[in-house]
Amino acid sequence: MKLLRVGTAGAETPALLDAEGVLRDLSGVVPDIDGALLADDEALARIRAVAGQLPVLDAAGLRIGPPLGRIGKIVCIGLNYHDHARETGAEPPAEPVVFFKAPDTVVGPDDTVLVPRGSVKTDWEVELAVVIGRTARYVESAEAALGHVAGYAVAHDVSEREFQIERGGTWDKGKNCETFNPLGPWLVTADEVPDPQNLSLKLWVNGELKQDGTTAEQIFPVGEVVRYVSQFMTLYPGDVINTGTPAGVALGQPEPKPFLRAGDVVELEIEGLGRQRQEFKDA
Amino acid sequence: MKLLRVGTAGAETPALLDAEGVLRDLSGVVPDIDGALLADDEALARIRAVAGQLPVLDAAGLRIGPPLGRIGKIVCIGLNYHDHARETGAEPPAEPVVFFKAPDTVVGPDDTVLVPRGSVKTDWEVELAVVIGRTARYVESAEAALGHVAGYAVAHDVSEREFQIERGGTWDKGKNCETFNPLGPWLVTADEVPDPQNLSLKLWVNGELKQDGTTAEQIFPVGEVVRYVSQFMTLYPGDVINTGTPAGVALGQPEPKPFLRAGDVVELEIEGLGRQRQEFKDA
Repeated sequence: MKLLRVGTAGAETPALLDAEGVLRDLSGVVPDIDGALLADDEALARIRAVAGQLPVLDAAGLRIGPPLGRIGKIVCIGLNYHDHARETGAEPPAEPVVFFKAPDTVVGPDDTVLVPRGSVKTDWEVELAVVIGRTARYVESAEAALGHVAGYAVAHDVSEREFQIERGGTWDKGKNCETFNPLGPWLVTADEVPDPQNLSLKLWVNGELKQDGTTAEQIFPVGEVVRYVSQFMTLYPGDVINTGTPAGVALGQPEPKPFLRAGDVVELEIEGLGRQRQEFKDA
Repeated sequence: MKLLRVGTAGAETPALLDAEGVLRDLSGVVPDIDGALLADDEALARIRAVAGQLPVLDAAGLRIGPPLGRIGKIVCIGLNYHDHARETGAEPPAEPVVFFKAPDTVVGPDDTVLVPRGSVKTDWEVELAVVIGRTARYVESAEAALGHVAGYAVAHDVSEREFQIERGGTWDKGKNCETFNPLGPWLVTADEVPDPQNLSLKLWVNGELKQDGTTAEQIFPVGEVVRYVSQFMTLYPGDVINTGTPAGVALGQPEPKPFLRAGDVVELEIEGLGRQRQEFKDA
């Protein structure tokens, strides 16, 4: 299933995109798309059972919000693609690099993204987001870990490189500016993503292709990431893991690096998970 | 006012400790102690007006939970005390070091804390927690920033040093183990903390005093921390900032460093903000 949330920011209602691409209203069936729903097999089965009879929504002019409400935490994996580690001049990490984004950075897939005040190094990163559906705590194998995944979505891990790298401390300082995590358009349930390690990821800036990768290049695949993270912290339904970005970010380009400015338009997509489009403006 | 939340974990109800130290039931007045309440001057005034007439609660045997529900994010400041920077061998940072704890690490002040599986370097850190009451975004001065603070609480920033420092990536990996952020007992409103830079902080392990500091030693005081963080991310009502720990952590002791193990008891207190007591057990 493709689950989504539509309407005004902060007041989205649940919806479903059916197999024919028709948008249908889920608000009569479940209150929201969130961790509680994703952990509830009966509610998910009820949605599947009634999907064909749900009221059709007029998609024209309707804002798409992030496909998940009440996100608990967003764990991010850094330098998780062989090609991206090379372009940044970093050694491929011996074990996953973990940092955080706050859930309040999440916006809809086509919402405006703000270049922070004082920023000169705002950068893009297309990422496969993994949404947790079952509590994961000291999971023993990568294979078992995949059973804790409810679904997948496109995430844009917008990053300010000066804040991230040159201002002291951890990466979190450059990863948590407001609007820095467009998510969606859909949460695609895991049953419709048979191989998360074989998805193409693409990102364009002002129409020019900048990232053209595949999750086959991930140093630590999705199951291993979930297993690994669960040794350090408990993952709960409604938590999200941004699993890293392939090569092609501004930081990896020759000088002068083409960092983002107000007026730029970034589009990104992952095979089967939909497409985002953001206009950048000044904060 | 001293606001708190009592009852079973995950089902706490709001309460108030009055000026005479009597516990009173707030559940008939407000649904919870959270960001929405802290941003609502009228609701806070209503509590003040009726405080003397609220039903008395029997404190005996009543669990105290964290004094804040629906925490949005927890921003932590590292190496923020002159004496602690010295003991860890680090230079005092030129600007605040920022990392994150997930809100799901928060437990009540006297709840059990779990030593993670595989941990050999679980450490203690008593910290002054700042609770945000008004949205803080690009705040211009430290003085103005203090106006965004709703109140203060005791936080225990439990830390696993091997995970934090020796496993690659950012500090977040050693800061987010389950139960790693006891908070409370109270949220003391800012009007009752006239000078947040003049509070003593103490921590004992198995009855032995380990940390004995003062917020006067903070490199970046509370107002400056709020101002600084608000340049990088937006702080919302119900967000928390753990403002760093003074000297005396296990990491700063000579070998063999006395890291925490199952069976240890940690007690901590901050002047005017109350006292915590945790038994450590194996996860």
